[in-house]
Amino acid sequence: MPPSRLSIIGVGLLGGSIGLAVKNGLTSCRIKGYGHRKSTLDQALNLGAIDSAAVSAADAVAGADLVILCTPVGLFDEILRSIGPALAPGAIVTDVGSTKRSVVRLAQEILPSGVHFVGSHPMAGSEKRGVEFAKADLFKNALCITTPTARTDLAAVRTVESFWQTIGMRVTRLTPDDHDRLLADVSHLPHALAAALTMLQSDQALPLAGKGFLDSTRIAAGDPGLWRDIFIDNSDNLRDGLRRLRGQIERFEAMLLPEQSTQLHQWLDAAAKKRRGRSDGPLSGE
Amino acid sequence: MPPSRLSIIGVGLLGGSIGLAVKNGLTSCRIKGYGHRKSTLDQALNLGAIDSAAVSAADAVAGADLVILCTPVGLFDEILRSIGPALAPGAIVTDVGSTKRSVVRLAQEILPSGVHFVGSHPMAGSEKRGVEFAKADLFKNALCITTPTARTDLAAVRTVESFWQTIGMRVTRLTPDDHDRLLADVSHLPHALAAALTMLQSDQALPLAGKGFLDSTRIAAGDPGLWRDIFIDNSDNLRDGLRRLRGQIERFEAMLLPEQSTQLHQWLDAAAKKRRGRSDGPLSGE
Repeated sequence: MPPSRLSIIGVGLLGGSIGLAVKNGLTSCRIKGYGHRKSTLDQALNLGAIDSAAVSAADAVAGADLVILCTPVGLFDEILRSIGPALAPGAIVTDVGSTKRSVVRLAQEILPSGVHFVGSHPMAGSEKRGVEFAKADLFKNALCITTPTARTDLAAVRTVESFWQTIGMRVTRLTPDDHDRLLADVSHLPHALAAALTMLQSDQALPLAGKGFLDSTRIAAGDPGLWRDIFIDNSDNLRDGLRRLRGQIERFEAMLLPEQSTQLHQWLDAAAKKRRGRSDGPLSGE
Repeated sequence: MPPSRLSIIGVGLLGGSIGLAVKNGLTSCRIKGYGHRKSTLDQALNLGAIDSAAVSAADAVAGADLVILCTPVGLFDEILRSIGPALAPGAIVTDVGSTKRSVVRLAQEILPSGVHFVGSHPMAGSEKRGVEFAKADLFKNALCITTPTARTDLAAVRTVESFWQTIGMRVTRLTPDDHDRLLADVSHLPHALAAALTMLQSDQALPLAGKGFLDSTRIAAGDPGLWRDIFIDNSDNLRDGLRRLRGQIERFEAMLLPEQSTQLHQWLDAAAKKRRGRSDGPLSGE
């Protein structure tokens, strides 16, 4: 059953894009949005991303059959506490956060029984932020990871997965632990490195940057608040990724000698083959 | 004076693209190409990237007024030795290598007096290799760095710079030392990191990669032989860049704590502002 009353908490790039996508595909669904800035809510209304603006998070979820948390991860605790008492029995809550262990644990602690939580990570986005960059096709062909646990209601999982499929996503399931471990490597670590790589550039070097540098650091332009929350929430996995990265860098540095050129070639060849094996399309965002 | 007899040594992606660009803009110029594989030379002839194929590097440069070395950096020593005796007095030799100290030094040692060498680094390219990917507009709007020294003939520098401008490039000058130091940071280090980041991914993580990972590691698919030569040739600068990168990573890791969240936000904000300050267009390659 697709949702007939959808609540979006946080109407930025992701929340706004979900609204626009639903308006395209589920025309009978009514969308109520909430955000802490009145100007953002007005903009979301003008863009047609939501049908009505709520005065609080609790107001936004009253009577909703599906609630999607679209704020930075660091606000989930506060929001779950404020919406808990206002949720209708049988309501389903999901989210779009880039880390999953903490939100799944918080939802289990905070939400009342009779309300179902299913963690989601729709892997779409952009280094841009704000509802003004929202697009109805942001999620098209991208991957959404759901993270049910042994305690999650299976019907709720299916409803949430169908919802993401309705707006064009491919869906796969992982445990919250596996999600956070794997995404640390494939998403959070690249972001941290892009920031580090940008920070070490001198004013003389930066204007010489070509397409290679620009591609490899584009994600460093992302929203600092959003990424701070992700990094702190997933710090254990990120530290493990950094440890393995240091191992790769040490290996590389040890091969920077003419007498090691065969080994260096092999390492670069293995990296090139591995990267080429992962085609760029259909594209999915972060 | 634009060249009337151009010699291209190495007709791969860059050499082939130079040939196609010259055919578009300097119709009176005759191009002789040389490559160690007969099949590549045949393909370059078929694509119209060269007018005739030479049987050796020495044969390719005989009678040329401009010679462009387009092979990997590691072959320059051997090629300069073989073409030296065949070059006409007054001929100008340049190259497209991504490092500049070594080729400038080799040219000074090896080339006969009366022949002029001007180092060039046209910053265009792709992770693809081979003349089949050559494009006449590969260099359009991209940056070319020339690296004359106090001993370089100024008329030769101007001829080489005019040549790059004729095929659509913007030109800037650096010393060979400054070039290699700055490019280590802004080009070679990102490439090494993209390879390290790819190598540490597990088979389970890689299929979850989104646009962020794919953008940030695209350059890791580049030609291993080409990059091996660059890394070994510029190892001192690269080691210094890796040292500073480790400093940034240590700083980042020390901030992965809830009580450091303000500092982490500031660091990410500084990186985002710095990256946004470097617009993506007009694009230049690597």
